[in-house]
Amino acid sequence: MAATEFEIIRRYFTRQQPAREDVIAGVGDDAALLRIPPGMELAACIDTLVAGVHFPAGTTAAAIGHKALAVNLSDLAAMGAEPAWATLSLTLPDNEPAWLGEFARGFFALADRHRVELVGGDITRGPLVITVQAHGFVPAGTALRRRGARPGDRIYVTGTLGDAGLALQLQAAADRALRARLDFPEPRVEAGLRLRGLASAAIDISDGLLADLGHLLEGDGLGAVIEADALPRSAAFLAGAGTAGTGEHSRYYELPLSAGDDYELCFTVPAQHCAAVEQRLAALSCGCRAIGMVEAGPGIRCRRANGEPYLPAASGYQHFAAHGHG
Amino acid sequence: MAATEFEIIRRYFTRQQPAREDVIAGVGDDAALLRIPPGMELAACIDTLVAGVHFPAGTTAAAIGHKALAVNLSDLAAMGAEPAWATLSLTLPDNEPAWLGEFARGFFALADRHRVELVGGDITRGPLVITVQAHGFVPAGTALRRRGARPGDRIYVTGTLGDAGLALQLQAAADRALRARLDFPEPRVEAGLRLRGLASAAIDISDGLLADLGHLLEGDGLGAVIEADALPRSAAFLAGAGTAGTGEHSRYYELPLSAGDDYELCFTVPAQHCAAVEQRLAALSCGCRAIGMVEAGPGIRCRRANGEPYLPAASGYQHFAAHGHG
Repeated sequence: MAATEFEIIRRYFTRQQPAREDVIAGVGDDAALLRIPPGMELAACIDTLVAGVHFPAGTTAAAIGHKALAVNLSDLAAMGAEPAWATLSLTLPDNEPAWLGEFARGFFALADRHRVELVGGDITRGPLVITVQAHGFVPAGTALRRRGARPGDRIYVTGTLGDAGLALQLQAAADRALRARLDFPEPRVEAGLRLRGLASAAIDISDGLLADLGHLLEGDGLGAVIEADALPRSAAFLAGAGTAGTGEHSRYYELPLSAGDDYELCFTVPAQHCAAVEQRLAALSCGCRAIGMVEAGPGIRCRRANGEPYLPAASGYQHFAAHGHG
Repeated sequence: MAATEFEIIRRYFTRQQPAREDVIAGVGDDAALLRIPPGMELAACIDTLVAGVHFPAGTTAAAIGHKALAVNLSDLAAMGAEPAWATLSLTLPDNEPAWLGEFARGFFALADRHRVELVGGDITRGPLVITVQAHGFVPAGTALRRRGARPGDRIYVTGTLGDAGLALQLQAAADRALRARLDFPEPRVEAGLRLRGLASAAIDISDGLLADLGHLLEGDGLGAVIEADALPRSAAFLAGAGTAGTGEHSRYYELPLSAGDDYELCFTVPAQHCAAVEQRLAALSCGCRAIGMVEAGPGIRCRRANGEPYLPAASGYQHFAAHGHG
């Protein structure tokens, strides 16, 4: 006999581990009851994963559980917020115990590393769609915002770019490290916390560097120059995409500029804070790299190390776009 | 050309009206930034509507927009929380402008009546699935909970029961008033606020009276007796379901006991507060009615006005149940 919604919640999503003390009521009432520490603002974001859109067929349940939370923690990281609570809405075609167990394992492994408590949710029968809302705290007035960059600010990214996009292109041929970047993206939470008070603006890279940097700049009517050869590329990326960076519209340039799903942070830093930022982030495994400069006029232009312009083929993933990747 | 996600958000989900002053950043950043008033706890809930599961095919976009928010405000009402903010995740097969416009109209008409600001969201291409998370405030320590009922407490419900269930059964033959109850359920927010400090426990009726009252009682190991003839039934319900209440398993009994989607509140009140509750809720259009009593042993039994037991056929909607309604 199939398990009811309540049995699923009890079996897979109710845990006995010590709960956060700011959770007055978690899973099991009509709503969660939560306490915000004094002096803190609440950061809240919601993001949905749809099978075939946000992850390829054949993605493991553990990876889906991880990623559904990771994309939201990435949004909190981009605000400089400290994660606290999550809610989960799970719509799924059946209640296969092995799938649910693996999904929960992937979700909670990441949640535990960031002290995130699952405080509520909803499970429904339907097409596979996973929505997570994450909540975090940020001391009043210190959140990193998309707006705030100024001409002359240096542009940085954490980690490496293009790995997830290459894994998506190579599919079964992708090596393990690339595939892990697509399936188990690591939200740059600690980097976001260390950027408070130093970065002038920040965003996470979900749709591709050019698209997301564009969102960061457009609110202030600004533009940028990007050093296309300075983009951080992993060893696995170079092994799979080739190092021949001269070819127009090669993977070497296109994926780091335009592929989504990397979930690195892109942020701007005034000149006087660059040394402090580089020092603070050097201690993290992801590190950071300067990749360009904010400019006064609108538009993002890319150039090669030899000074010649590089004209990208695509500008990032757009849902519902007539000619988008989807 | 099809609109992008950002154009959809700008066109349909960004508004110019005066925003709540506790919203520091709403739609348009990586996360919303929100301020909780001092002395308040945050109530947060998430609920998903799936086409064909939570609303029949042919439901208007305005009704879907309304209902997606209403089911969440109903959860806040059951906690005695005052609504404040919502986030929306919308997965939809295409971006038909007329559908989106009507959906937004239904959503915001209800949001405005409860001073709810939409502070964030996500729009994705995929099967039609709508997830809303609602947030509200409740003075610390005053939330209505599912647990807290005591033997001898009187059991009440707001409004009338069975209307939405009858509309679902009658489909096109349902009269306008019944259909409105299914499509545009009215969350009992004001009733929830007035129950603070008086009700010993509360829940909203989404899966059916017997199922939801069962959730309220089971945590404390309690039971109840329900007066099956005392259940509040609307004139439209009686006209459609028949008043002949003697038939075993008739709609007259079964729908108010077991049909979901009414989104009324069910709550328990200690004897000394019953007069105050009845007085406070009499001023609201929904009113309230006493329908039974909490008992010490587990199990819910129903009886007729003549004192004979009534044995219900079904006990409420269960997702994934082997013999559920779905």
